[in-house]
Amino acid sequence: RPKSELLQQSRSISVEALKPNDTFPRRHNSATREEQSIMAQSCGFDSLDSLIDATVPKSIRSDSMKFSKFDSGLTEGQMLEHMQRLASMNKIHKSFIGMGYYNTFVPPVILRNIMENPAWYTQYTPYQAEISQGRLESLLNYQTMITDITGLPMSNASLLDEGTAAAEAMAMCNNILKGKKKTFIIANNCHPQTIDICKTRAGGFDLKVVTSDLNDIDYSSGDVCGVLVQYPGTEGEVLDYAEFVKNAHAHGVKVVMASDLLALTVLKPPGELGADIVVGSAQRFGVPMGYGGPHAAFLATSQEYKRMMPGRIIGMSVDSSGKPALRMAMQTREQHIRRDKATSNICTAQALLANMAAMYAVYHGPEGLKTIAQRVHGLAGVLALGLNKLGTAEVQGLPFFDTVKIKCADAHSIADAAYKNEMNLRIVDKNTITVSFDETITLDDVDKLFKVFAGGKPVPFTAAALAPEVVSTIPSGLLRKTSFLSHPIFNTYHTEHELLRYIHRLQSKDLSLCHSMIPLGSCTMKLNATTEMMPVTFPGFTDIHPFAPVEQTAGYQEMFDDLGNLLCTITGFDSFSLQPNAGAAGEYAGLMVIRAYHMARGDHHRNVCIIPVSAHGTNPASAAMCGMKIVAVGTDAKGNINIAELKKAAETHKDNLSALMVTYPSTHGVYEEGIDEICKIIHDNGGQVYMDGANMNAQVGLTSPGFIGADVCHLNLHKTFCIPHGGGGPGMGPIGVKKHLAPFLPSHPVVSTGGIPAPDKAQPLGTISAAPWGSALILPISYTYIAMMGSKGLTDASKIAILNANYMAKRLESHYPILFRGVNGTVAHEFIVDLRGFKNTAGIEAEDVAKRLMDYGFHAPTMSWPVPGTLMIEPTESESKAELDRFCDAMISIREEIAQIEKGNADIHNNVLKGAPHPPSLLMQDTWSKPYSREYAAFPASWLRTAKFWPSTGRVDNVYGDRNLICTLLPVSQMVEEEAAATA
Amino acid sequence: RPKSELLQQSRSISVEALKPNDTFPRRHNSATREEQSIMAQSCGFDSLDSLIDATVPKSIRSDSMKFSKFDSGLTEGQMLEHMQRLASMNKIHKSFIGMGYYNTFVPPVILRNIMENPAWYTQYTPYQAEISQGRLESLLNYQTMITDITGLPMSNASLLDEGTAAAEAMAMCNNILKGKKKTFIIANNCHPQTIDICKTRAGGFDLKVVTSDLNDIDYSSGDVCGVLVQYPGTEGEVLDYAEFVKNAHAHGVKVVMASDLLALTVLKPPGELGADIVVGSAQRFGVPMGYGGPHAAFLATSQEYKRMMPGRIIGMSVDSSGKPALRMAMQTREQHIRRDKATSNICTAQALLANMAAMYAVYHGPEGLKTIAQRVHGLAGVLALGLNKLGTAEVQGLPFFDTVKIKCADAHSIADAAYKNEMNLRIVDKNTITVSFDETITLDDVDKLFKVFAGGKPVPFTAAALAPEVVSTIPSGLLRKTSFLSHPIFNTYHTEHELLRYIHRLQSKDLSLCHSMIPLGSCTMKLNATTEMMPVTFPGFTDIHPFAPVEQTAGYQEMFDDLGNLLCTITGFDSFSLQPNAGAAGEYAGLMVIRAYHMARGDHHRNVCIIPVSAHGTNPASAAMCGMKIVAVGTDAKGNINIAELKKAAETHKDNLSALMVTYPSTHGVYEEGIDEICKIIHDNGGQVYMDGANMNAQVGLTSPGFIGADVCHLNLHKTFCIPHGGGGPGMGPIGVKKHLAPFLPSHPVVSTGGIPAPDKAQPLGTISAAPWGSALILPISYTYIAMMGSKGLTDASKIAILNANYMAKRLESHYPILFRGVNGTVAHEFIVDLRGFKNTAGIEAEDVAKRLMDYGFHAPTMSWPVPGTLMIEPTESESKAELDRFCDAMISIREEIAQIEKGNADIHNNVLKGAPHPPSLLMQDTWSKPYSREYAAFPASWLRTAKFWPSTGRVDNVYGDRNLICTLLPVSQMVEEEAAATA
Ligand SMILES: Cc1ncc(COP(=O)(O)O)c(C=O)c1O
Ligand SMILES: Cc1ncc(COP(=O)(O)O)c(C=O)c1O
Ligand SMILES: O=C([O-])O
Repeated sequence: RPKSELLQQSRSISVEALKPNDTFPRRHNSATREEQSIMAQSCGFDSLDSLIDATVPKSIRSDSMKFSKFDSGLTEGQMLEHMQRLASMNKIHKSFIGMGYYNTFVPPVILRNIMENPAWYTQYTPYQAEISQGRLESLLNYQTMITDITGLPMSNASLLDEGTAAAEAMAMCNNILKGKKKTFIIANNCHPQTIDICKTRAGGFDLKVVTSDLNDIDYSSGDVCGVLVQYPGTEGEVLDYAEFVKNAHAHGVKVVMASDLLALTVLKPPGELGADIVVGSAQRFGVPMGYGGPHAAFLATSQEYKRMMPGRIIGMSVDSSGKPALRMAMQTREQHIRRDKATSNICTAQALLANMAAMYAVYHGPEGLKTIAQRVHGLAGVLALGLNKLGTAEVQGLPFFDTVKIKCADAHSIADAAYKNEMNLRIVDKNTITVSFDETITLDDVDKLFKVFAGGKPVPFTAAALAPEVVSTIPSGLLRKTSFLSHPIFNTYHTEHELLRYIHRLQSKDLSLCHSMIPLGSCTMKLNATTEMMPVTFPGFTDIHPFAPVEQTAGYQEMFDDLGNLLCTITGFDSFSLQPNAGAAGEYAGLMVIRAYHMARGDHHRNVCIIPVSAHGTNPASAAMCGMKIVAVGTDAKGNINIAELKKAAETHKDNLSALMVTYPSTHGVYEEGIDEICKIIHDNGGQVYMDGANMNAQVGLTSPGFIGADVCHLNLHKTFCIPHGGGGPGMGPIGVKKHLAPFLPSHPVVSTGGIPAPDKAQPLGTISAAPWGSALILPISYTYIAMMGSKGLTDASKIAILNANYMAKRLESHYPILFRGVNGTVAHEFIVDLRGFKNTAGIEAEDVAKRLMDYGFHAPTMSWPVPGTLMIEPTESESKAELDRFCDAMISIREEIAQIEKGNADIHNNVLKGAPHPPSLLMQDTWSKPYSREYAAFPASWLRTAKFWPSTGRVDNVYGDRNLICTLLPVSQMVEEEAAATA
Repeated sequence: RPKSELLQQSRSISVEALKPNDTFPRRHNSATREEQSIMAQSCGFDSLDSLIDATVPKSIRSDSMKFSKFDSGLTEGQMLEHMQRLASMNKIHKSFIGMGYYNTFVPPVILRNIMENPAWYTQYTPYQAEISQGRLESLLNYQTMITDITGLPMSNASLLDEGTAAAEAMAMCNNILKGKKKTFIIANNCHPQTIDICKTRAGGFDLKVVTSDLNDIDYSSGDVCGVLVQYPGTEGEVLDYAEFVKNAHAHGVKVVMASDLLALTVLKPPGELGADIVVGSAQRFGVPMGYGGPHAAFLATSQEYKRMMPGRIIGMSVDSSGKPALRMAMQTREQHIRRDKATSNICTAQALLANMAAMYAVYHGPEGLKTIAQRVHGLAGVLALGLNKLGTAEVQGLPFFDTVKIKCADAHSIADAAYKNEMNLRIVDKNTITVSFDETITLDDVDKLFKVFAGGKPVPFTAAALAPEVVSTIPSGLLRKTSFLSHPIFNTYHTEHELLRYIHRLQSKDLSLCHSMIPLGSCTMKLNATTEMMPVTFPGFTDIHPFAPVEQTAGYQEMFDDLGNLLCTITGFDSFSLQPNAGAAGEYAGLMVIRAYHMARGDHHRNVCIIPVSAHGTNPASAAMCGMKIVAVGTDAKGNINIAELKKAAETHKDNLSALMVTYPSTHGVYEEGIDEICKIIHDNGGQVYMDGANMNAQVGLTSPGFIGADVCHLNLHKTFCIPHGGGGPGMGPIGVKKHLAPFLPSHPVVSTGGIPAPDKAQPLGTISAAPWGSALILPISYTYIAMMGSKGLTDASKIAILNANYMAKRLESHYPILFRGVNGTVAHEFIVDLRGFKNTAGIEAEDVAKRLMDYGFHAPTMSWPVPGTLMIEPTESESKAELDRFCDAMISIREEIAQIEKGNADIHNNVLKGAPHPPSLLMQDTWSKPYSREYAAFPASWLRTAKFWPSTGRVDNVYGDRNLICTLLPVSQMVEEEAAATA
């Protein structure tokens, strides 16, 4: 209490003490000044700074960072005011633009209890099934919804957006035909952004994309692997593709359909039309447009191609008691992305948004969805009828669902008139407009549209008066006859209380950051502060169509500019693209930038990518997707890249060297001393350095990719920059580049964009994401984080993240071997605990420790990556010393449990680790046949007596699940059978 | 699916189908049309309407209700838009008004995780301790905060507002002196609303309130029981009351201090100055001003007077395993409110807001609070210094904490100039202004104030430049020297992660509507829909001072007018007062209206109040507080009021009859047929009919208090009109009256108000609440409920509430006796299950059933009220048939458990009911000595296997706790001892 004593003595007041007090860094960064010295001292340093100096190599240590804006950080109150101002600068017009984005009513119960609920949004990807059954069920609902509605039996648990989903489907077609047919045809009734993404993506796969009018499609080359059509088309037409599909199949061509979930509730589903793959967006199922994202895209296919599906898939299995339990299916398949021949790199997807969309379907049920669809369809019908009566424009004759295509004398003048009435229409060309309807549009809006189209003349009718005359033009053969969403889950929770409880019932099974630290190495599960999250649901940010005129989005644009500049300062780069919407998408985009750069210089042959063996699986996958040849280099005993080997590889491939991919600090949690040398070697041999920014949390304010020598880098904003993990997405993976690469940053076919700040010239590589600025709606999270922390707060964060890791490593080192350290014996912001030895001494594997940690109320660290048989711990700066100690206590206690096996005091096959986790159902069984006690199984640490998070199932059997792959909800009859079998 | 088939056939569209689809009634009212007939049929009726016709007496059945606004109900989307519009009509100025209300930064983590979190706000009052340990701990934190900061050892868990807290303290003084000294002195340095509330309240107690200048206080009459002073004073002065207190005590006078928590973090606490009782508001500890409320008020006193404290008190006890556990202390004391001599009627208080304030203290800790206080004090000092330098106005010489009192030539012109700069100042009189500071004020604001006071002349300094010169004027003898909030809870959770987890850890112990139905008879725990809750945290509603100029609050005013009118239509009354902020406050206000009416007619002698024995305890308590003589009348065997007895009583007291208090439908859950006769008897004998509107959920749209014949009625908006219970408040208890009573509705000394719609003349009874429109911030909840339901939705709600109760009664009647039914064998919206017989047959009491219900995942119904040994079940319309069935299944299963005891299969002393509830710690004990199985104890129903809410302690011992009364957190040393004792 020195401060208050001071006041009592002198009673004079410093200006500093009068500054607003609701400062943020002390809420985000955990360790107090006192704790910092205690912890540094326990690591053998006299202060935090000396620990940092010993840890970060001098050669790359940069001067202190300085922002041109927000340098000293806004307080929480100032930040919220600022964000309210930005939100109010965005003008919300009614959107009739369509093109894959529709306004929707987010059911408030879902908004508050999922989207605004940290117990949902701070969850990690459900790798640890036993403490993730809630979101696993919700994602299974999502998959069931997609398969039911599309009419195809297999779905994954979301992809990044509709455009990339189409590109993934294209890659699947290529794969299905074993890469032997290199042409992919896209009907020009697809959304322009979908077409461009596929074109860009085709480059790396050496595929030829041909766009074609539907009527002119030509398979005669014999080289066509697939064709993509849209249903309904981007301009609204609803066509019967049955013959089209037959014809394609007759030519051995796979058919991909981009479609719309709402339309499919009333239209014959693609599965019944014979489509092989269906893709689309679940956005309009209760997820705000958010100026482009995040939203869940879907991909459904037949059983035949399920093992070629990209992305995560949830499936059923059983737990240690034989009871049904869910988990991520075919996880080993994810390893495929390591391969040089990878066709997908997707990792972080859109779990939170998939959950929202699934809950929307749960809330409305099949009848509710159909009612919405019919209303939307009806409103479109009223417009069409009215325009026909008005006679000032011509409505296209084809059947439509929600989008009316209109030929008119001057599309721009009509759009302008609409604009003045705060309505955005789509201008297709100078004589064509489309008007798309969604559930938020009203009859009043249609009346306003009539006025606009009447061009000042009186409108002799009202929308309401016309309604009874409207006749749907959809041919009866295209009307949906099959039922869908018949599972009770979609037919039970239709009142708010029922849905509220269903959401909370699922939530209660899932561990999140609301419970305890989630020390996942490489994932940076730090605080996702409420002030950062609040603007995400400000209507001024949520209700904007990504293709709204840019002048309506001044608030967003200011934020993009400032964020781009701030990220440049942080990373030492010259320009940023905010388009990639996940880390892996950023890797892909960054490598494509490098590829475009080489090509622009005539170096078409530069296609070798050197990647250390310790790299994250997405690295080689991304390189493969860019058509690069991967050359692996090994690491030395200390975990550092083998520089001699690297040098040799670079020199060997000198002529064709395209890039190095390197993570810094390394995936082993070490600041490699040789990193500047490594960069130099690559540059000397004509290559570019791609840095994987996943570990940026150990760099901010201390060094930077640009300073170190990288040419391009992606940032996982969902790691270092506080976007919550959402149970497996959303994320954002913007890329920063040096000046020479800036011209190549991605653009967009509808809204032109590029580097921020903008480079002098632009030669964009193409399009990476469906929306111009990726998942714009979640950028406020990173923006507010940076703006509230200021340069010093951020630098402190890096230091404390490193301190926390070293403190834990110190506490654990006498109990477990710590793999890899820097030259001065310290680790970076994360470290690896080696468990491999226990396999021999106690029959214990990493998984056993991971599952036992659940009994202690913790989520396991990253398991068996980057080194099999280890755990990688990353505490982050937001975890308090008390929490670190609690986690260390758990680990030390588990070590003692292992020792009991080693000593022969516990059975090697039947012990508290092998039996873990222990759900209540197990612990309360009347007969207890375990050799250890119930109480010890349940309460191995004292804090668990005060409050304990309970795993909801016993250990889940992955092998069983993959052998009996079931990836949708079972029909009730079958459910009952399964449960009977399980309890028998 | 008839609708969609229709479309498929005719494909023409009805206007109805094009109306917005996000309708609300189907989300609130549970039973579908199909379920309605099934359920009605199971009750022996062919339809819902025939069940209703048989249940509601024809004589009081009114025509269908029709609203002049919102009659057909807004959709959720429309409602949110409407509320955004209202919010934007409220103009947010910086408030320097003070007077007990200060702007504050609500920590976003508290905002989102408590105030906006249904898992906190839908909790019930923690009567069932074993499933309420989380909020009990938080309320104990609140009590500890209050006792620590005020320096007095006993605190309750909140009161309604500072003004009524002062009135409660006044009543305590009267009590302490056994009613022998009938004068209460109030220093005129108290807030005007505090003074007026005390004056109004004194009327009923036959106390004389004398207001006096501090220096002129005169105890010489020998008739003074207490004196109320304010510290700091309403105009800011900080005086040393040490001598004052000594002097009062020397005259046998008790001293009440109204104080300010923030000031007390730096000022010598009232306890050290010798105060007997301290009252105040915890609003500025992170609770928005909300145009007047809800906020938690506090009352602290010495150990000596603890049993005279009003309101709920949380205390420590032990559970069945001897472990420390919390519960509401001295609950039997609550029965005192039944007595004719009651001095307090408080029931619903401000639990949710007390929790918020406590968490604010937990988050900031003692040092953080002092820092805020010193900053606020410093800013006030800068203003004072600057004004002295400016010389345009004169700063009062007394020491101040946060409020600067200024003498000036023309207060109005200065206030006007401030107003133009969006700043509200307090005008004390035409030459006096005060300026109060809070944590949201900045140096910039002070500069703006300088400009205002400079009146156009240049200001030759800046606030920042002045700061170092500022010297605090508080005498060092008045500076706080004692520490406070030293408990670890206030010194640990200072980062957002730590607080987030603390909040969630507590939350995980508490059952709320997020888990299951809470079928509390008389409490109407219905859906608190998200759309209703969202506007409560719109800044346009939260950030308004209650005494802001009315023209700044057009949004609020529109809502008040519409709400008043809607409530008039619903109740059949002519005017409403929105001032009372709980049901009991409404009762009191309503009886005071009747009292004022009689007085205005010269009927000063009319002071007899007839109250049926079945009335809620607050009824006689309220009557006693109005100085009424209570005459009880009994009920007949069917539970109805004994009309003959009533008639006799009315006639006997004909000359002095003031009122009847009656609940309708009766507290027994029956529509008494004789209600119109009853009203007539009272009227014929010169009395007024007060109706307790707690059971309004069975009247809306079917009948109304006005139609039945009541003259005045309070509505518990936190029951029928969807304000959530918040774990024991907030609530709202507006009163409606017939035309002849409208002039007497309460007003307010600062902002004049009265009946809505306004009556022709006004003769207000005085002031009931500290804020003119009570807890205005939560009125949007009831307003949106009514506006979204529309008249039909509301009427359906009443019908379905009745249906649900009858359906449950039917299912249970073959297992339990159902007490009391109407003439046609039906019950109203609630019913009583009689458990008294089991005492003899199985040794089982109501409490055993209540506790066993927890094992089934349910909160018990209302226990032993209005009939001891029973449970009263009120399902509400928001509970689905599935949920009702689940609850009935649990009750039937428990009946079977009782049968096992009756049959001798289970031990009468040691069985699954007596052992309930069963927390995990008990169920997982290594040794299990119960005669029943663990699994049966834990999982007596199949649904519990899917997801179960766990009680966190064994049965809590109330007697032990009351014998060893501990109502604050124990110092750590003692905690360790207690725990050692418990685990030994
Ligand atoms: C080192 C590294 N690189 C890349 C990625 C991929 O990022 P994302 O999951 O956002 O696609 C990860 C994800 O964990 C990672 O740890
Ligand atoms: C019949 C009845 N009257 C009055 C009240 C008191 O209302 P409040 O708790 O809002 O003061 C209650 C509360 O449950 C009640 O049930
Ligand atoms: O406390 C009651 O609400 O009765």
